[in-house]
Amino acid sequence: MLDVILLGTGGMMPLPKRFLTSLYVELEGKAIVVDCGEGTQVAMRRADCKMSRVELLLVTHFHADHISGLPGLLLSLGNGGKTGKLVIAGPRGLRRIVEALTIICPGLPFEVEIREIDTREPSSFEFGGEADKSKNHANTPIFEITCLPMRHRIACLGYFLELKRPPVFDPERAKELEIPVKFYRTLHSGEAVTLPDGRVITTSMVTKGERKPVKIGYCTDSAPFSAIADFAHEADLFICEGMYADDAMRERMEDKKHMLFSDAAKLAKSANVRELWLTHFSPAELNPKDGLSAVRKIFANTVVPFDGYRKELIK
Amino acid sequence: MLDVILLGTGGMMPLPKRFLTSLYVELEGKAIVVDCGEGTQVAMRRADCKMSRVELLLVTHFHADHISGLPGLLLSLGNGGKTGKLVIAGPRGLRRIVEALTIICPGLPFEVEIREIDTREPSSFEFGGEADKSKNHANTPIFEITCLPMRHRIACLGYFLELKRPPVFDPERAKELEIPVKFYRTLHSGEAVTLPDGRVITTSMVTKGERKPVKIGYCTDSAPFSAIADFAHEADLFICEGMYADDAMRERMEDKKHMLFSDAAKLAKSANVRELWLTHFSPAELNPKDGLSAVRKIFANTVVPFDGYRKELIK
Repeated sequence: MLDVILLGTGGMMPLPKRFLTSLYVELEGKAIVVDCGEGTQVAMRRADCKMSRVELLLVTHFHADHISGLPGLLLSLGNGGKTGKLVIAGPRGLRRIVEALTIICPGLPFEVEIREIDTREPSSFEFGGEADKSKNHANTPIFEITCLPMRHRIACLGYFLELKRPPVFDPERAKELEIPVKFYRTLHSGEAVTLPDGRVITTSMVTKGERKPVKIGYCTDSAPFSAIADFAHEADLFICEGMYADDAMRERMEDKKHMLFSDAAKLAKSANVRELWLTHFSPAELNPKDGLSAVRKIFANTVVPFDGYRKELIK
Repeated sequence: MLDVILLGTGGMMPLPKRFLTSLYVELEGKAIVVDCGEGTQVAMRRADCKMSRVELLLVTHFHADHISGLPGLLLSLGNGGKTGKLVIAGPRGLRRIVEALTIICPGLPFEVEIREIDTREPSSFEFGGEADKSKNHANTPIFEITCLPMRHRIACLGYFLELKRPPVFDPERAKELEIPVKFYRTLHSGEAVTLPDGRVITTSMVTKGERKPVKIGYCTDSAPFSAIADFAHEADLFICEGMYADDAMRERMEDKKHMLFSDAAKLAKSANVRELWLTHFSPAELNPKDGLSAVRKIFANTVVPFDGYRKELIK
C-alpha cells in the first residue's frame, strides 16, 4: 500500500483552518515527509500518520513556511517512538539551518543524517531498503528520488519520487519450468534458488517483465518552466503549487516566483500526468475550490485538495 | 480596556484541538505575548489578536513547546504591519536562541531588542509608555514586570505583570479649588497646569489617591514552591500550569518538575488571588475539565480554560 497524504495546502503562513503545504508518503511502514512548516506535526497527528515511521525528510527550501516546524517535528518523531536514523535532505546550506533550528531539541533519540543537494543541476539518489545487487532486484521497495532545481527567490528543489516496482511473479511460467511450489515464495521475494536437480532459477525467469514505476512529483515554490513538465512526465500524481486561481495575479506571481493554478495545469497537461493536486494556496485565496472549473478546462484531472487529502496510489 | 487571552492550554506538544500555552495581554493598543510554541501565530489569528500591536515577548524558558513558534510569529508580526521595536525578554542565553531560530526569518521590518534576565534571583523591569518624571504620573500605561526564577529542569522564569493605574480624577475637588473646566482634561491626563490666577495645580490635588495595580501572574513550567504564592499575592488573575488533574501523577510530576491541578490551586489559595486559570495540560490529559470539581474544593474560583479563553480585566 502506497499511501499519499497532502498534510496541508497553505502557503506563506499557517491559518486557523489551513495547515502549511507538506506531503506524507508511506509504503510498507516506511515514510517520507516533504517539507515541514509550522504545524506539520499537528497535521500529521490529525491525519493519523505514524511518527516513528518517518525515515526521510525532504526539504524544498529554507523559507519558514517550509521548514519552521522542524524542531517540533523532530521532537514528536522521538516522542512517537522513532529510534532509527532519519535522513534530512535539502539544498546546500541544510546542515547550518538544521543545526540552528535544533538548538531547542537536544538529545533526540535517533541519529540525523544530513544530505545536502546541489541546486545548480538535477540530481538523484535512492531511498529504501538495502539494494542487494547480488539479487535480481531488491527485496525492499526503493524510491529513486530526483531533485530538480526550481526557479524561486532562493535555492529550491522540486522532488520526483519514483517507486521501482518488482516484476509480477508468474506462476504459469514457474509451472512450465517444473519448479516446486515451496520455492515460489523465495523467487517472488527476488532471490534466486537452486533446485534439487541443480538448475539455478532467477526471478526474471518466472516474472512477467518490468512494471512502470509509480511516480509522484512535488513542485513548490517556483516560477513555471518547461523542465518541470519534462521531469513530471507521465507521473501518477503531480502535486504543484498554485498560489492563486485568478490569472490577474500573474504579474505579482512572476515577481514573487510563484505559480498560478493555470501554470500548474499547463505543466500537468504538457507532462501528461495522471492527476494534478494543487497546493500552497495564498492566505488571500480564501476559496481555492472556486477556481476548479476554470483550471479543469486546461487539465481535466485536477484536484483542489483540502488539508489531509489522501489517496492510495497502490492498494 | 485590559484584554487577557489565553491563546492555548497545551503543554509538551501541540495537538489538533489544543494549541500550546501562550498568553496575549493588550492594553490601549500595546500588546504583550508570553511564550510562543509552535502554532502561537495561528492561535493569535484565531483569537483575532492584532499582530502589529505586539511590543513585548516574554519567554519563560527554552523548551520547544514555549519557543518553537518564534520564527513564524516574528514573520507574522512583520506581515501584520509591525514596524516598531519588539523587545524579547527571557532567561540568559536568549540571544543565542533567538539568533539561531531566526536564521529562517532574515530581513524583519522591525528592530528586535533582546533582554536577558538573570534566573538566579527575582528581578523586575518596566514596560510601557515613556515614564515622564516631570509629570505626576506617566501619560501612558506602565507594566511593572517581575521575573521569578521557577524550579524546572532548565532555567525558567515566571512573570508577574502589574499595571500601575493612575488615580481617578475627582471633579468635586477640582470644583472646590475653582479650577476652570477647560483645564480638567489636561489635569486628568497627568499634566500640571498653571491657572490664570497664577496657581499651579498638580494632578494629585484633584485625584482620589492611588489605586491598587492590576496584577496578572503566569507561572509555567515549575515544581510548586511557596515563593510563587508570595509573588502572586492578591493577583487579579493567576495563570498557572497544571499538567494533570489526578494526584496519582504526583511522583512523576515531581521528577519532571511540573505541577498538578491541586498544586496550582493550593498556591492560588495561599496567595489569595482573585481567580486561577489552569493551563499547560499534558497531551495525555484529554478532558481537563473533569478535574474541575475536585480542584474547586481547594480553590473555588478556578477556571479550566479552553484555547482562546479571554477576560477583560479592565473594561
